[in-house]
Amino acid sequence: MYEGAVQDLIDELGRLPGVGPKSAQRIAFHLLQSDAVDVQRLVDSLVQVKAKVRFCATCFNVAEAEQCRICADPRRDATSICVVEEPKDVVAIERTREFRGRYHVLGGAISPIDGVGPDDLHFRELMTRLASGEVTEIIIATDPNLEGEATASYLARFLKGMDLKVTRLASGLPVGGDLEYADEVTLGRAFEGRRLLDA
Amino acid sequence: MYEGAVQDLIDELGRLPGVGPKSAQRIAFHLLQSDAVDVQRLVDSLVQVKAKVRFCATCFNVAEAEQCRICADPRRDATSICVVEEPKDVVAIERTREFRGRYHVLGGAISPIDGVGPDDLHFRELMTRLASGEVTEIIIATDPNLEGEATASYLARFLKGMDLKVTRLASGLPVGGDLEYADEVTLGRAFEGRRLLDA
Repeated sequence: MYEGAVQDLIDELGRLPGVGPKSAQRIAFHLLQSDAVDVQRLVDSLVQVKAKVRFCATCFNVAEAEQCRICADPRRDATSICVVEEPKDVVAIERTREFRGRYHVLGGAISPIDGVGPDDLHFRELMTRLASGEVTEIIIATDPNLEGEATASYLARFLKGMDLKVTRLASGLPVGGDLEYADEVTLGRAFEGRRLLDA
Repeated sequence: MYEGAVQDLIDELGRLPGVGPKSAQRIAFHLLQSDAVDVQRLVDSLVQVKAKVRFCATCFNVAEAEQCRICADPRRDATSICVVEEPKDVVAIERTREFRGRYHVLGGAISPIDGVGPDDLHFRELMTRLASGEVTEIIIATDPNLEGEATASYLARFLKGMDLKVTRLASGLPVGGDLEYADEVTLGRAFEGRRLLDA
């Protein structure tokens, strides 16, 4: 409907996840009316991200070198690996400042519906890391949903018989939430995982 | 939280209208995992839009030349001008195929709250277009909201005394909607603007 270049931009923006045709149009007109320097900054950041960013050769987190910042940091505990689905999960866990070990990013979760099987994820590379015998604990931090649970079970079976402490992040009531608003599954998990209080 | 280039891209994407921090992160990771050619196409479309697209010297619609396609088209009726707020309104009206005249894009609506006064909009340029005497009808198609109505009233006062037919798009019930779901103002307007049916 628009003249060439505007329509091209709307089409390209509309291909991004979560950007519908109306948002694409809105963003396109915003950019059209923005200063050229602002648009250039966006262009540069796109070019830079493709030029500079790759995935860590060890853990598959995003990295700007052969290894990511965490794998390259000698102060991080190499005996403990936290297994997550995506690089953004690494960021979420880093924010808690609870974990001083290293990560392994699987690149997704097992999902037969989406055609994602174990071979599509970085399980093999995790095994290679474990071969050195340095690692003593694996914390499975896949998402608390169907695919994440399936991936956690698969991994737990895989690691069985190895001399490793394998744990899974606790499920339960979110802190700051209301008990009455929790769904049954979450509330059920909270019961199941109830802990003794020190009197 | 992310390494340099990824965080830069998330920041830049987060500046776009309607893109929050979570969406920016999602889009950034999508682009990170996309083929380089796909990202290059987005980059090219951004560069092209800033290089090629400007605003029509006559009507302020988007254009890839001195004049937009509509102003440059001799088959369009030059005696009738439809006044709209934004270029996307031109596209919406063109889709109806009801109007064969030309447009004038004000570039927004009068909104004292947002600090937009008549001088910030292309009223003066509309007057210049009317000076030739060729135009006989003005159709005011600003949005049917507070700012659009204020802009329409301002324009109507401005045009008073000139030998012009000035009309405003009808307000009423949206076609295909349910009467019971219409808000009071819309329903009131529909009553006000009721038309005689030919028996």
